[in-house]
Amino acid sequence: MNKIKIGLVGTGYIGRCHAIAYAQLPTVFNLQDKIELEYLAEISPELAAKRAKEFGFRRSTANWKELVSDPNVDVVDICTPNFLHKEIALEAIRNGKNVYSEKPLALTANDAKEMYLAAKKSGVKTLVGFNYAKNPTSQLAKEIIANGEIGEVIHFYGTHNEDYLANPNTPIDWHCYRKFAGLGALGDLGAHIVHMAEYLLGAEIDSVCGDTQTVIPQRPSPEDPNKFCTVENEDQASALVRFTNGVMGTIETSRIACGRKMGLSYVVTGTKGTLSFTQERMAELKLYVHNDPSNRQGFKTLLTGPEHPDYRPFCISAGHGIGFNDQKTIEVRDLIDGLLNDKPIYPDFYVGYHVSRVLEAIALSASTKSWINVSDI
Amino acid sequence: MNKIKIGLVGTGYIGRCHAIAYAQLPTVFNLQDKIELEYLAEISPELAAKRAKEFGFRRSTANWKELVSDPNVDVVDICTPNFLHKEIALEAIRNGKNVYSEKPLALTANDAKEMYLAAKKSGVKTLVGFNYAKNPTSQLAKEIIANGEIGEVIHFYGTHNEDYLANPNTPIDWHCYRKFAGLGALGDLGAHIVHMAEYLLGAEIDSVCGDTQTVIPQRPSPEDPNKFCTVENEDQASALVRFTNGVMGTIETSRIACGRKMGLSYVVTGTKGTLSFTQERMAELKLYVHNDPSNRQGFKTLLTGPEHPDYRPFCISAGHGIGFNDQKTIEVRDLIDGLLNDKPIYPDFYVGYHVSRVLEAIALSASTKSWINVSDI
Amino acid sequence: MNKIKIGLVGTGYIGRCHAIAYAQLPTVFNLQDKIELEYLAEISPELAAKRAKEFGFRRSTANWKELVSDPNVDVVDICTPNFLHKEIALEAIRNGKNVYSEKPLALTANDAKEMYLAAKKSGVKTLVGFNYAKNPTSQLAKEIIANGEIGEVIHFYGTHNEDYLANPNTPIDWHCYRKFAGLGALGDLGAHIVHMAEYLLGAEIDSVCGDTQTVIPQRPSPEDPNKFCTVENEDQASALVRFTNGVMGTIETSRIACGRKMGLSYVVTGTKGTLSFTQERMAELKLYVHNDPSNRQGFKTLLTGPEHPDYRPFCISAGHGIGFNDQKTIEVRDLIDGLLNDKPIYPDFYVGYHVSRVLEAIALSASTKSWINVSDI
Amino acid sequence: MNKIKIGLVGTGYIGRCHAIAYAQLPTVFNLQDKIELEYLAEISPELAAKRAKEFGFRRSTANWKELVSDPNVDVVDICTPNFLHKEIALEAIRNGKNVYSEKPLALTANDAKEMYLAAKKSGVKTLVGFNYAKNPTSQLAKEIIANGEIGEVIHFYGTHNEDYLANPNTPIDWHCYRKFAGLGALGDLGAHIVHMAEYLLGAEIDSVCGDTQTVIPQRPSPEDPNKFCTVENEDQASALVRFTNGVMGTIETSRIACGRKMGLSYVVTGTKGTLSFTQERMAELKLYVHNDPSNRQGFKTLLTGPEHPDYRPFCISAGHGIGFNDQKTIEVRDLIDGLLNDKPIYPDFYVGYHVSRVLEAIALSASTKSWINVSDI
Repeated sequence: MNKIKIGLVGTGYIGRCHAIAYAQLPTVFNLQDKIELEYLAEISPELAAKRAKEFGFRRSTANWKELVSDPNVDVVDICTPNFLHKEIALEAIRNGKNVYSEKPLALTANDAKEMYLAAKKSGVKTLVGFNYAKNPTSQLAKEIIANGEIGEVIHFYGTHNEDYLANPNTPIDWHCYRKFAGLGALGDLGAHIVHMAEYLLGAEIDSVCGDTQTVIPQRPSPEDPNKFCTVENEDQASALVRFTNGVMGTIETSRIACGRKMGLSYVVTGTKGTLSFTQERMAELKLYVHNDPSNRQGFKTLLTGPEHPDYRPFCISAGHGIGFNDQKTIEVRDLIDGLLNDKPIYPDFYVGYHVSRVLEAIALSASTKSWINVSDI
Repeated sequence: MNKIKIGLVGTGYIGRCHAIAYAQLPTVFNLQDKIELEYLAEISPELAAKRAKEFGFRRSTANWKELVSDPNVDVVDICTPNFLHKEIALEAIRNGKNVYSEKPLALTANDAKEMYLAAKKSGVKTLVGFNYAKNPTSQLAKEIIANGEIGEVIHFYGTHNEDYLANPNTPIDWHCYRKFAGLGALGDLGAHIVHMAEYLLGAEIDSVCGDTQTVIPQRPSPEDPNKFCTVENEDQASALVRFTNGVMGTIETSRIACGRKMGLSYVVTGTKGTLSFTQERMAELKLYVHNDPSNRQGFKTLLTGPEHPDYRPFCISAGHGIGFNDQKTIEVRDLIDGLLNDKPIYPDFYVGYHVSRVLEAIALSASTKSWINVSDI
Repeated sequence: MNKIKIGLVGTGYIGRCHAIAYAQLPTVFNLQDKIELEYLAEISPELAAKRAKEFGFRRSTANWKELVSDPNVDVVDICTPNFLHKEIALEAIRNGKNVYSEKPLALTANDAKEMYLAAKKSGVKTLVGFNYAKNPTSQLAKEIIANGEIGEVIHFYGTHNEDYLANPNTPIDWHCYRKFAGLGALGDLGAHIVHMAEYLLGAEIDSVCGDTQTVIPQRPSPEDPNKFCTVENEDQASALVRFTNGVMGTIETSRIACGRKMGLSYVVTGTKGTLSFTQERMAELKLYVHNDPSNRQGFKTLLTGPEHPDYRPFCISAGHGIGFNDQKTIEVRDLIDGLLNDKPIYPDFYVGYHVSRVLEAIALSASTKSWINVSDI
Repeated sequence: MNKIKIGLVGTGYIGRCHAIAYAQLPTVFNLQDKIELEYLAEISPELAAKRAKEFGFRRSTANWKELVSDPNVDVVDICTPNFLHKEIALEAIRNGKNVYSEKPLALTANDAKEMYLAAKKSGVKTLVGFNYAKNPTSQLAKEIIANGEIGEVIHFYGTHNEDYLANPNTPIDWHCYRKFAGLGALGDLGAHIVHMAEYLLGAEIDSVCGDTQTVIPQRPSPEDPNKFCTVENEDQASALVRFTNGVMGTIETSRIACGRKMGLSYVVTGTKGTLSFTQERMAELKLYVHNDPSNRQGFKTLLTGPEHPDYRPFCISAGHGIGFNDQKTIEVRDLIDGLLNDKPIYPDFYVGYHVSRVLEAIALSASTKSWINVSDI
């Protein structure tokens, strides 16, 4: 292939973010003429046509099945609500399409496995939208860890906390129903920090012990504020984890954590140093190196710049700042690069499946009050 | 006009930034079909063609005079080195083109005045690239001040410090020569903070007392590290200022300030509160309100989100982060909006001219060791 | 009693801290003539005499049994290594002395229980040195929580991480042996954060699930760097906890956490707000209140001052700063106040015993890989 | 001398702080039996006796003249309102007493000069209470600068801003009258940052250009809220300065700076690095060193600990925190050490006099709108 033709399914919050990434990609990464915004699917012909115009896509449809079988589509980009990921992905794979799916890959680990295996069997390339790992700052964190600059990792603490459902009067929405969302905070947010943990350490989580809670068990119906509906999944979750290499870790997630607006954060402790990061200050990485002289020790605030991974194409000056959509642009660059040059793409459906297993293990562990091996999921 | 045709002159650092802004603009602000990347000028046909391809422009030329007189160009976007701004802008105005120029508007206040008067006389619209004022966080600061939330402003402290010439072994470049750059740190960086001061306070600076220094008087030639060339303008400058409304202020700028990578910062003190900001944490505004209960007082860190100006089109979730190029995208939106809807555009050449007068007053003040009225420049 | 006569046993690190607290106490809290530094015990007559002179005590002895039975001693202050706490405390209680003991109360929960029951039976007053709870900033946190300013607490995350054993070449010391220290990081540091959790929430932890690790299993002998000795207790520990009121929490502690010098920290999330604190910035409490207007939300940094608990006696100006020893001075004030005015003193041996149970439950849980009820310890 | 007998005059805010310092001094610095709290003067016999009891002084008087001529007083410690400093100091010097005076040394530079010359002539030792320079963190800053770790200093920015008079309804007090306070914010707060600048750089300020403003020209009488009294000195001041070594600097001070509770701060920029500090985080020094690898550059947060000057006597663990009174304790240690061992004491009356000249030069400069040489004051 020397030009990648995109078929986008779904144009809500995250679909719009993908569209912005596609828009700036050619200029940022010098990929003019390498992508074509070919086809867009939404739930009605009108909305599909409207979004196609807004996002710069050539054609539109109200039937995603037409899109996933269209000969002029190279990659199906799935930005629908979570419960549709599986069906669309499987149909796309059946049609030999490469698939770029938002996280979480599916509502259950079993569904994710089916998707992973289908892709593996068919040989198509896949990508899951764990975009925070594309932030140059977190890429830098991975580089520092891989270089051994903090020695061997001995502890990981990570969170993805937000407060979008902190107000008990916020009406119930799809996030709160198992059939639409699967898990609650774990599926929506926990997926990111579980992935980040495994990405940074280069090791999988292999056992977990979790605790979860639905703090606000009922929420008003969006139609009738006097009618209350049951929240079916967890508002917050915490888990002790162990990685395959024996490293201890703790992971926490919440959708009701007042004040945390983009609360993906991590502290990675090694035998010789420590890294600390929060996505709310997405351009800053704090690095402590233990062998500094004892009277000159301290956490150094690295401000991401052109010396760091994937920053320079956006700006040649340090500290000028990468935004949320820029992360997605790097993710899309990885997709296009993988397809154009027939290279592996990370993180693929295997990774997405593994993350789903970890999340499901945490949920199961919480209900059984016991440690669970991820391999048992 | 119902579609704006862009002619871009210059494709270095900031030209590339404009190109990224143009690329994402239609999708972010729903302006598909409202702009055309029409014409691009560079110093050779080959480079012009190469950049036109990379940036998605239709045509290219090695002769900017062809561009500024082209009937299919609505706005001339000047991203050349500073010393060319005047000639290109005047020629564009002569051809009835609207002009979007990078800062500083010109090498001297007199030149800037000529440009401002030419634009005024011809009736074309103008815009100067003081992009930091487009950051949603600084727009929020302006809103808070304008609302009176911090009472009446009584003090302004602002800096724009960077360290791109901190190393004395860094070879001399165009920034250091009067004929190419005009002023030194004042022209390159000070322009931004002087503009920001006037933007935030809604008042002009009318007298100044400055001090400047060329700390590193000679730098190696880029061709021959053993040959040393004279630096002709200031490395750092500080000034006491007074605004038309009597408010006291202090402004500092440096290009040799070790560790400051994007050191545009301000503290605005009012009778009832205070705002504090640094561009290195471009999504955070610290707000103190004095009438909180005495045991609950403190600076609150506001994290920019969709409730704040011009953030929502990029992302509907708070705290997800705007990047440097996103500021430029908002600036370009203002340009397109002004042209499409025949509205005033801010900051125009008058503003750019006034900023140049302030900077020149600071430089003159430093050499005469006396207070200078800006109106005397 | 109208004057409290102190008998101090042990003058190492923490004993010296007590001595400084006693020294400034009368002036800070206007308690001149209310305490007498009566008697001091150390391991040799020479050291005892030397320290008595340095710390301003009237008499000294190399036999702590003389001290605990001396008729002129009202309170026995135990600053010895941990393994001696029990014996000295029991003997002091037997002699009818009030007892002020450093944490952890004892090497095991059973020992702590014996001490608690002995004190209860005899009716003497007791105090355990959980001094971080005396920091005006953490007292403020408790006040804010108790007021309901952050709604009902729904989550607690706390750490006490330090790096005093981070270097694997640091020779083994008493902290690493069960017979001298009992637990490792849990006993030395975890005790503080477990206490803080219960203090802040006003609720006990009633079940735990922990994980622990001895990352550096052997350390060089202090006598012979080529000889390696076995570390007998944990370097780091994490635990999921549940409080009696059902609140979820996570607690972590480490003595090998590179870069954490005074890493006692907590984040307390409520239904209406959040508090965040780290002892390294011991004068700052971050408070988020969810019902601020949506475009003015954010964490406010409260800087401790005279409007906050127990700050004013040190300084009448806000933000001037309380130091580590000042916390201890407040603790000692609580001791003297309780004895002079026959009031309850907090935290007493019951609290110390309960903290020991929680720590031991975490350790047991880690070894059995299961949840443990604290009441089963 | 082998024991220093203290005579304290004045027991308000800062007198109390001195008393706390004296109280903990012997224990912290192992100086038992080296000081005697001999004599205390206040405005009435009752208050003097009360404070003597509270602060642990042996004798008291309502007549400071008795104190300064008492044969058993070695050093007169002046903590009175500013306008009394001169008379008491001169009388004490006349009696051959060493003098420890709070800042500002006097209401005018001329008065300060008279005091300095009197002390010089009589040969007594003097000390001025610029206690912020005794903070271990600022001592560390000085050490780093003196070591050349940030190269040669090229710029100093410093503030001492507070908000104790920010509310226009706060009744007028002695700070606002020339006859009681001399200068306004400059004298009360500016003195500290001017001293800090000269201390850190090891160079004097030799010319200044200032601007000042009385933002709130009238305040209610403390007796009658409907009666308004004229504020006679400046609420805020800013100045460009040059040091003897040619270094540029800017100094700002305000007593109406909303939100700044202990706003003494500085940024010292050198040719090879930068230091940044604010007293509100009095244990943290941020250090940037330019020759770190370009992808590992950043400000490192040094947390004061036992490896740094004068911290260890307070605590042997890093990051545990020094408080405001601990600075004063170090200052008093310097006093006692200088007297016991007949060593120079810093900062003495010469330094206090020089600071007064700088402050007066700033005020004069503001009224004449011109640069002023400090030597002309």
